[in-house]
Amino acid sequence: DVVARVSGISTMAKLPFQETAEGLDAAFIGVPIDTGTSNRPGARFGPRQIRSESIMLRACNSATGAAPYESLMVADIGDVNVNMYDLKDTCRRIREAYCKVVKTGCIPLTMGGDHTISYPILQAVAERHGPVGLIHVDAHSDTGDVYLGEKIGHGSPFRRCVEEGLLDCKRVVQIGLRGTGYSPDNYAWSRAQGFRVVQVEECWHKSLVPLMAEVRRQIGSGPVYLSFDIDGLDPAFAPGTGTPEIGGLTPIQGLEIIRGCRGLNLVGCDLVEVSPPYDTTGNTALTAANLLFEMMCVLPKIKYYD
Amino acid sequence: DVVARVSGISTMAKLPFQETAEGLDAAFIGVPIDTGTSNRPGARFGPRQIRSESIMLRACNSATGAAPYESLMVADIGDVNVNMYDLKDTCRRIREAYCKVVKTGCIPLTMGGDHTISYPILQAVAERHGPVGLIHVDAHSDTGDVYLGEKIGHGSPFRRCVEEGLLDCKRVVQIGLRGTGYSPDNYAWSRAQGFRVVQVEECWHKSLVPLMAEVRRQIGSGPVYLSFDIDGLDPAFAPGTGTPEIGGLTPIQGLEIIRGCRGLNLVGCDLVEVSPPYDTTGNTALTAANLLFEMMCVLPKIKYYD
Amino acid sequence: DVVARVSGISTMAKLPFQETAEGLDAAFIGVPIDTGTSNRPGARFGPRQIRSESIMLRACNSATGAAPYESLMVADIGDVNVNMYDLKDTCRRIREAYCKVVKTGCIPLTMGGDHTISYPILQAVAERHGPVGLIHVDAHSDTGDVYLGEKIGHGSPFRRCVEEGLLDCKRVVQIGLRGTGYSPDNYAWSRAQGFRVVQVEECWHKSLVPLMAEVRRQIGSGPVYLSFDIDGLDPAFAPGTGTPEIGGLTPIQGLEIIRGCRGLNLVGCDLVEVSPPYDTTGNTALTAANLLFEMMCVLPKIKYYD
Amino acid sequence: DVVARVSGISTMAKLPFQETAEGLDAAFIGVPIDTGTSNRPGARFGPRQIRSESIMLRACNSATGAAPYESLMVADIGDVNVNMYDLKDTCRRIREAYCKVVKTGCIPLTMGGDHTISYPILQAVAERHGPVGLIHVDAHSDTGDVYLGEKIGHGSPFRRCVEEGLLDCKRVVQIGLRGTGYSPDNYAWSRAQGFRVVQVEECWHKSLVPLMAEVRRQIGSGPVYLSFDIDGLDPAFAPGTGTPEIGGLTPIQGLEIIRGCRGLNLVGCDLVEVSPPYDTTGNTALTAANLLFEMMCVLPKIKYYD
Amino acid sequence: DVVARVSGISTMAKLPFQETAEGLDAAFIGVPIDTGTSNRPGARFGPRQIRSESIMLRACNSATGAAPYESLMVADIGDVNVNMYDLKDTCRRIREAYCKVVKTGCIPLTMGGDHTISYPILQAVAERHGPVGLIHVDAHSDTGDVYLGEKIGHGSPFRRCVEEGLLDCKRVVQIGLRGTGYSPDNYAWSRAQGFRVVQVEECWHKSLVPLMAEVRRQIGSGPVYLSFDIDGLDPAFAPGTGTPEIGGLTPIQGLEIIRGCRGLNLVGCDLVEVSPPYDTTGNTALTAANLLFEMMCVLPKIKYYD
Amino acid sequence: DVVARVSGISTMAKLPFQETAEGLDAAFIGVPIDTGTSNRPGARFGPRQIRSESIMLRACNSATGAAPYESLMVADIGDVNVNMYDLKDTCRRIREAYCKVVKTGCIPLTMGGDHTISYPILQAVAERHGPVGLIHVDAHSDTGDVYLGEKIGHGSPFRRCVEEGLLDCKRVVQIGLRGTGYSPDNYAWSRAQGFRVVQVEECWHKSLVPLMAEVRRQIGSGPVYLSFDIDGLDPAFAPGTGTPEIGGLTPIQGLEIIRGCRGLNLVGCDLVEVSPPYDTTGNTALTAANLLFEMMCVLPKIKYYD
Ligand SMILES: [Mn+2]
Ligand SMILES: [Mn+2]
Ligand SMILES: [Mn+2]
Ligand SMILES: [Mn+2]
Ligand SMILES: [Mn+2]
Ligand SMILES: [Mn+2]
Ligand SMILES: [Mn+2]
Ligand SMILES: [Mn+2]
Ligand SMILES: [Mn+2]
Ligand SMILES: [Mn+2]
Ligand SMILES: [Mn+2]
Ligand SMILES: [Mn+2]
Repeated sequence: DVVARVSGISTMAKLPFQETAEGLDAAFIGVPIDTGTSNRPGARFGPRQIRSESIMLRACNSATGAAPYESLMVADIGDVNVNMYDLKDTCRRIREAYCKVVKTGCIPLTMGGDHTISYPILQAVAERHGPVGLIHVDAHSDTGDVYLGEKIGHGSPFRRCVEEGLLDCKRVVQIGLRGTGYSPDNYAWSRAQGFRVVQVEECWHKSLVPLMAEVRRQIGSGPVYLSFDIDGLDPAFAPGTGTPEIGGLTPIQGLEIIRGCRGLNLVGCDLVEVSPPYDTTGNTALTAANLLFEMMCVLPKIKYYD
Repeated sequence: DVVARVSGISTMAKLPFQETAEGLDAAFIGVPIDTGTSNRPGARFGPRQIRSESIMLRACNSATGAAPYESLMVADIGDVNVNMYDLKDTCRRIREAYCKVVKTGCIPLTMGGDHTISYPILQAVAERHGPVGLIHVDAHSDTGDVYLGEKIGHGSPFRRCVEEGLLDCKRVVQIGLRGTGYSPDNYAWSRAQGFRVVQVEECWHKSLVPLMAEVRRQIGSGPVYLSFDIDGLDPAFAPGTGTPEIGGLTPIQGLEIIRGCRGLNLVGCDLVEVSPPYDTTGNTALTAANLLFEMMCVLPKIKYYD
Repeated sequence: DVVARVSGISTMAKLPFQETAEGLDAAFIGVPIDTGTSNRPGARFGPRQIRSESIMLRACNSATGAAPYESLMVADIGDVNVNMYDLKDTCRRIREAYCKVVKTGCIPLTMGGDHTISYPILQAVAERHGPVGLIHVDAHSDTGDVYLGEKIGHGSPFRRCVEEGLLDCKRVVQIGLRGTGYSPDNYAWSRAQGFRVVQVEECWHKSLVPLMAEVRRQIGSGPVYLSFDIDGLDPAFAPGTGTPEIGGLTPIQGLEIIRGCRGLNLVGCDLVEVSPPYDTTGNTALTAANLLFEMMCVLPKIKYYD
Repeated sequence: DVVARVSGISTMAKLPFQETAEGLDAAFIGVPIDTGTSNRPGARFGPRQIRSESIMLRACNSATGAAPYESLMVADIGDVNVNMYDLKDTCRRIREAYCKVVKTGCIPLTMGGDHTISYPILQAVAERHGPVGLIHVDAHSDTGDVYLGEKIGHGSPFRRCVEEGLLDCKRVVQIGLRGTGYSPDNYAWSRAQGFRVVQVEECWHKSLVPLMAEVRRQIGSGPVYLSFDIDGLDPAFAPGTGTPEIGGLTPIQGLEIIRGCRGLNLVGCDLVEVSPPYDTTGNTALTAANLLFEMMCVLPKIKYYD
Repeated sequence: DVVARVSGISTMAKLPFQETAEGLDAAFIGVPIDTGTSNRPGARFGPRQIRSESIMLRACNSATGAAPYESLMVADIGDVNVNMYDLKDTCRRIREAYCKVVKTGCIPLTMGGDHTISYPILQAVAERHGPVGLIHVDAHSDTGDVYLGEKIGHGSPFRRCVEEGLLDCKRVVQIGLRGTGYSPDNYAWSRAQGFRVVQVEECWHKSLVPLMAEVRRQIGSGPVYLSFDIDGLDPAFAPGTGTPEIGGLTPIQGLEIIRGCRGLNLVGCDLVEVSPPYDTTGNTALTAANLLFEMMCVLPKIKYYD
Repeated sequence: DVVARVSGISTMAKLPFQETAEGLDAAFIGVPIDTGTSNRPGARFGPRQIRSESIMLRACNSATGAAPYESLMVADIGDVNVNMYDLKDTCRRIREAYCKVVKTGCIPLTMGGDHTISYPILQAVAERHGPVGLIHVDAHSDTGDVYLGEKIGHGSPFRRCVEEGLLDCKRVVQIGLRGTGYSPDNYAWSRAQGFRVVQVEECWHKSLVPLMAEVRRQIGSGPVYLSFDIDGLDPAFAPGTGTPEIGGLTPIQGLEIIRGCRGLNLVGCDLVEVSPPYDTTGNTALTAANLLFEMMCVLPKIKYYD
């Protein structure tokens, strides 16, 4: 170290900041909203807190040997300028911002924000890549239809995506689902679309390395998007989130999922639902920062020393 | 005490809960939103936390001799069923709910929620009483026009009220205004409408008893609404709020303002912008609970032992 | 959802509140004390906080297919009116209150409060059902004799129960015991009564599904009471408690224990020792709310879609 | 400094610890209970936290020139061994412990613990000195009779003292009283005994130096006890307490009260109701530590450089 | 607003970031250290947290009419690259960094960091301007000689400055001093140098506007530096600091001091000792951000609309 | 219990305090520094907080049957008098203090403090015992060379030890290493010295009992030192630390490691990097207290009832 870790303007992983995605292979982008949240808000400060807690991220991955900056040009390109007072307009703004990013060929690594944002991001991603596969880690299926009369919110992004043909439904897997539901067969709709649903009980007491081998077979070589709701993790590990559910995944399993994506054709990733006001130690944001770093480490063309 | 203070379902001041305003002289009502907030959210949990921290409120006011329950029928009538995902629809729901309350003659004592809610509440109040006077305690004038392209939010309710003729502008006073602004003469619009603007600097190091004598003369005997943004108080006393500004009023001054309303024709009161995630000790909610109790103690027809 | 989750007076799982157990199959009851606590207090606010954090509990259990409200009439019947200043008198009040509840045939689901309360609750339960089996999840055996000269406190309820013949000692199991003790053979007394003692080391790195099969054989078809001290869980998952001990059970194991009670003749359940002042994120109360919901889902006569 | 402030076993003001009061002019003593508390508990950890936050207390008082250790032998003599499970037995233990302390001639400086403790302490003090004057700083009069059927608790110590003739009622003053009450004339009983009652409204916006001149005249040269409930201060300055009330005294006024006791015949002092679980920054305990230091600085025979 | 306040990379007051002071009239600079701290550390995160909490700072000062950006070019130039492991080397790095800044004519507005940093900053300032006047707001005089054998630390910067002739001692004022000390005449050394010492007791219950008129006369037209230790404020308003002392200044008095500097020849300002780990609500950093904004508003050549 | 757990001056495990190691078989010692820390400070308060949270530690180990006080004389001998302002001088002070301790034959059980301290402690230990084996539990290898130009800090103690010949490199094992690094082969230096490196991935989903059997064979019968950085544990279990890394060991594995040291010739142990400002519930310190108790339970000559 020649610069003290605690010193300097806060960007993701102490990367350079630039205004646009021009010239980048991948970019960290913040989407600071929480107006799609049903319970505890605060995810609007997710990007800021993830940046703050990312200062210890060094250049290489000790476990996998990945040296991402040797292969890719990466920067932090700041936040989407959201509309705090109108969620639907915010979705429009996100879609337009991401269309600009993905059209340069840059892979977006998103710091949320509540899960609503995956819907307009996937609109942009599918506009470029066509219907994509999806690896969705979450406590919730996020496939609701209407809440309080509304179709847009953090409980329904993936139903909206299916309705608009953005997903290649046979290449969708949802991992970590659990908790109470409005009906006894809470995941029937997902299964009816052809999604693979991995309820959290299937994951308990286990390594997810074998699961990910299956997932890689399911996803194949087509474009795939990784959407990681931090509430997929157990609240002991990620208390700073809006709708925690007990009995969740461990960060170890989270790492196995992400590292298990190595070799896939990832075209975008997000890490959503970090709510700093409920993250009393900063460690939820720290976890998110590390998971985003690991996502970068499995992007196509990464160089490994292993 | 024959019932332990900590025991029982949580209602405001341990009052009975009932579903509607029927038969009540005054009612505590919650409006649990924060989707009109520009910075820190969390005010959606204001009503819940105010109820929790209200359990020590006994029946009488030691300072003023008010014994409100000897004169008035009061209950907690629960929360408005807001739409978390659409702020404009939420405003419609609030207006409709308050029209039902005020048409029974019941005086609403509102537990916010962010300051956006005063706009639809005043729509309902003015529908019954015509344009009303306003005593507005706040760090901010809340008379902005458009933010991020939007006209509805917690920075603009009173401009909307003026545009719709809900306020009797000569009978409006704003107390405690301060902080930075978008232009050097930040309160020009308020003054242009005929509002009295009392910047916080006029309040420093002083009792507000003399000010309130002037305010009572300004307001006269017509109907008047009291809107108290907890951020009018200094953040040392009310840290749990969304847009704190330093150099604010003390709770002592807050009590002087409310007690100074004795004798006015109050037709409604609100206490807004309590954000529990930032209220690390619960004392902002406790302050709010006490201020709401004091508001009840100055409603018309209250019996005093003094 | 047609009502916003954050809206409304706080009852357990948003259930209706009623004053008595009349007409109910099961009832959630709060016992807000902590005056039996040896170290950190705060459990008096357990019932209030569990109710607050229960608002996301929907009607059905996604994992087990249980739809409890299709089979049972359930309500929140508020709190026992405890005596904050005299623990022995509090015990009398609890016993009397529970005698009224159980005599209607209603099954009590208790939100504690410190573990002292299980003693008077079991007095009431045994008065109706005779000596009962006990599934006791805890870091501590709670079978001490005298502390500081006193026989009543949270370290000794189950010794008192044995002395009064309230337990069918061959049908008692204690799970999760650990930590330091006053003598090297800390659980000798329990074993001497015929209890099965499952020290936490037997549970490490394992599913508890096999253990629960054994427990069901041990308990058989007679009446059994489930007493779950949240400190049975590891403090990472349940920091908000009075006497945390490291190396504890996971919530996954907690769920396996409760779900493993399906088919037993449960006559009452409690979840005790949630201390909100030490529950900095609310997630201990959230865990407790979920565990109580799961307990309801294994009561006799519950309908399952599985 | 030759020893780092943060280094060493924690005693009050880094004073030596000794087991008894032998040879001391004054002694700091802890009474770690909260079982007399009506609302938020936690004061059992008051002594420990006050000691922790006292490490910055240097030897001299910059404002008054007092150099207490040049005149007096002072030590920390640890805590009374209370009974956590029986409040009445705890009172007996406190009285006996303090009888031993005061009979040596040592002046006790007590770190509470809830306000219940002043009753048995005053039993011991009056046994030695006869009925004493009392300077009582508090938000509450603590002169209730019976709560939940009980006569012992933190709401009633001074009524018990009067009943037992421990106080010289004409030489009693209560400062800072406020908040809601069970009847409109909340302080009638105090006034009927001959106490001077200074409601907090008399203190607002003012130095208390003139008040203390009057108090010194009222108290005269007889023995007097100072009992300071930290909730006499406003919750902004002392959030870490069990029953906060808004509109309270400032620490500046607290210092004026204590410094205004210079010249009185103080025979004991206590600082009660510090509740660390609600003291999120440690500053309530820090305030208490400073107020206790200031109390020591006005004991009889202190040397001043002024 | 056309950009959401919560959106974007975090710089002071949402100003542009640039690497050097070239072309700037004033610059915000962070110095992220706390290794000179005697008690609670954490000030190393002061600059980061002040930036985070500065996002609500709009362009103009509502109270004074200052529109700083109409007169001055200002930017955030990031942090000094400190040596976390050697305090003396850190001082050298700070001095060198500030020499570069001040030689461009740019006025540094420093975000600390502990108070040690004022010593090397004043070395750089005096190298350009010669001995300067000093307005020093603090609970402590910071004029100690040696602590634990060391001459460099946050308790001694101004003694080092005097020894090196960096201060024009007749033009030094220290405001807000208080607390305990190592000797009864704690401020004798300051007075012996010719400093004016304003103990906090002189400030209680008062506006500081008259004091600042005197200070302006004392300081005259020569170059003057403003050093504001956040612990000069009372801990209720600024809990997030390392060595809080009770009975302090209010933010209102802090604003009066800074606004009272209008017209002086300010050549640099710092705001030090903000310790985020102890700033549980963020409001200490928010206060610091506002005070720094107010400092900018009184720099020479600022345009006012008043 | 005849003394209330919450009562009394705070020493480790409520042991007696004595000034020196004379007559002791083992001693708990605090080293309150954090000036060697790269990111979050606060470890200077580790010893104080560990003592506070140790009050529930009873005399015997329920799991292993160890009754340490039947075999060994143990006391708390307070803290090393560190120099807060000079890390290198602090190292000298630690070494000298430990030389005195170890020369009496007393085994030091250290409460840190940041990991820098293991270097001077090992200087003292090796001076008595010659090069020692090392069991090092940590997220980090702490074998860096130079950071910010400095050789002393918490990232490099074990490289310094190797350079000075303090370690028997074939008898060194590092367990739990993980996170990002400056190069892809982050542990090459350790392996080059002959250390066994157990990356955390080898530990996932497993009991460490088999690993410890191997470790005991590696270590043999020679003197060995145990250095346990609390960040070896996952941040969910130990949030209160300076440089947390996700995917860590569980406390169960920590217990397996320590209990697996039974039979080794332990000549000293430390538990470092507990940072109370980030330990929002106190449970990191509680974990540390328990791990230190367990270390005492595996010292040579301990009596077991098993
Ligand atoms: Mn989601
Ligand atoms: Mn989710
Ligand atoms: Mn407002
Ligand atoms: Mn406002
Ligand atoms: Mn228990
Ligand atoms: Mn227990
Ligand atoms: Mn009291
Ligand atoms: Mn009180
Ligand atoms: Mn200073
Ligand atoms: Mn200072
Ligand atoms: Mn380490
Ligand atoms: Mn480490």
